[in-house]
Amino acid sequence: MEPPVKKQMLEEKEDKNGEANLNGFNIIKVLLNDAKSKRVHVHGKFKGSDEDAIITMVKTPFSEESIKSILTSDTTLTLEFQNDIYGQHSAHTNPENNIITTQIIKPATEKHLMKYGDQKVFLLNESAEDYRTKTLPYLTNQKFSINWVYNILDHKTESERIVYEDPDKKNGFILLPDLKWDGKQVTDLYLVAICHCRDIKSIRDLNENHLPLLKNILNKGVEAIKSKYGVEKNELRVYFHYQPSYYHLHVHFNHIHYDVGGISVGKAHLLTDVIDNIENIDSSFYGKKCLPVLLREQDPLLPILQNPL
Amino acid sequence: MEPPVKKQMLEEKEDKNGEANLNGFNIIKVLLNDAKSKRVHVHGKFKGSDEDAIITMVKTPFSEESIKSILTSDTTLTLEFQNDIYGQHSAHTNPENNIITTQIIKPATEKHLMKYGDQKVFLLNESAEDYRTKTLPYLTNQKFSINWVYNILDHKTESERIVYEDPDKKNGFILLPDLKWDGKQVTDLYLVAICHCRDIKSIRDLNENHLPLLKNILNKGVEAIKSKYGVEKNELRVYFHYQPSYYHLHVHFNHIHYDVGGISVGKAHLLTDVIDNIENIDSSFYGKKCLPVLLREQDPLLPILQNPL
Repeated sequence: MEPPVKKQMLEEKEDKNGEANLNGFNIIKVLLNDAKSKRVHVHGKFKGSDEDAIITMVKTPFSEESIKSILTSDTTLTLEFQNDIYGQHSAHTNPENNIITTQIIKPATEKHLMKYGDQKVFLLNESAEDYRTKTLPYLTNQKFSINWVYNILDHKTESERIVYEDPDKKNGFILLPDLKWDGKQVTDLYLVAICHCRDIKSIRDLNENHLPLLKNILNKGVEAIKSKYGVEKNELRVYFHYQPSYYHLHVHFNHIHYDVGGISVGKAHLLTDVIDNIENIDSSFYGKKCLPVLLREQDPLLPILQNPL
Repeated sequence: MEPPVKKQMLEEKEDKNGEANLNGFNIIKVLLNDAKSKRVHVHGKFKGSDEDAIITMVKTPFSEESIKSILTSDTTLTLEFQNDIYGQHSAHTNPENNIITTQIIKPATEKHLMKYGDQKVFLLNESAEDYRTKTLPYLTNQKFSINWVYNILDHKTESERIVYEDPDKKNGFILLPDLKWDGKQVTDLYLVAICHCRDIKSIRDLNENHLPLLKNILNKGVEAIKSKYGVEKNELRVYFHYQPSYYHLHVHFNHIHYDVGGISVGKAHLLTDVIDNIENIDSSFYGKKCLPVLLREQDPLLPILQNPL
């Protein structure tokens, strides 16, 4: 709790600057509106000010206390429709029960405006021919450095972070924690297996010759995680990205409860599915398949895939 | 929009059943409180009733309209702290600007209570043989009612919510907003296409005979959404669930930016992928494929799939 004196001082400052008075706030643009997290970033100017401002508003999560207060006569329900045992309503409740957390950045710089802006994402389909005639030539011309991957494989960097290694040049790999994981709890467990073989760019290149490599990564990776972290195979999500963020074959291992970005259909491909598709459906599955591709508005690959050659 | 007369009738019905009067609602247990999506499922009983009920409350996403209404003198800000150019506030606004979508299930069965509870999740693989020998017999013995689906298909309920219908008995379908979408902004657009054909349980049943149906749902569904909501095909995620929550073939249509639950690999299957797999890889793909299955701890199917026959 804040001492009341300090609070009062802040309120006076606030009034003086007019920062917290929304009367006459002029909206320039909604930078981002995230429906899942109920968060919005709004660019605008306060009344009588020339400075750019960003207002971030987030609906608060429910708390035990607010649930109790809402589920009372404090709240009015309006029935939208009823179907069998299911009724859909709109609830109006006391503002006290339903606060909106609000952050104001003022003055906001160009960098803030970019940081809080939205980039549209598009879902396209890449046929096998698109890959050969468009994506592959684009990738080959790119100079994305993957020296950092070779540094890991050569034990030049991060060798102290290695959780498991099979040094075989053809079927071996290195397993280590992803940078997004602090390693402190298994609920957000995230490791990556990087294969030693240097000529497999992505799942597009995979066929029956790679089954020993794929099964090796699955079996030994899962085993190493179980032994070190106590997480079982059926609690792991083991997958590739397509398109990947770098073109050297690697596999993501997450805890199944961890809703990290990049696990959605159209982006993630389960290792077990990849093995099954090659082994039991068609050995050249990934050379034939039309693969979904999620691309951001500013990705250079987007116009290449969208436009005819 | 609903005619006012009907609305009034519903309100009278509502008062009679006392379903929408929260006065004296007795909370038994908070089944799930998801801080990320601001969603809560509460098990309890209405005053004077012995029936179990589940109240689901979700904070609504911001809409263009609500942002405009909130960023006015309608809203009171209380400064929490100020650090350099960053100010943190609590906002109290008019309840009209900050509605809580509320679903009431009454009477709720044991199955509903399980479905809405928080549980561990496991990722298993269901081979084609597992499906035939374990899953299918289990499903056939289940008595989970899908009357509410037939009510929609027969225009008995929710007919005013239908966005598009192709009445063809073989290849037709009804497209309507999912209950999770309030329809107020396209950022969380969520519609469902329910096919008229009543003998397709899930993607497991699909083969080349269903290509006309699948392409019809894809093409006409996308067209209807573009025409009504202005959202383009490459901004939509169009997919099935496997396992689905009910065994009558239906397709989910989301805005690609909307990270709703159930879009992860291992649960969601893109309609375009399903069509491509059947048409270009193997016409009996889904009769052969080993499919991933995400199951909650208490799902009766879990021990059935885990154990040998």
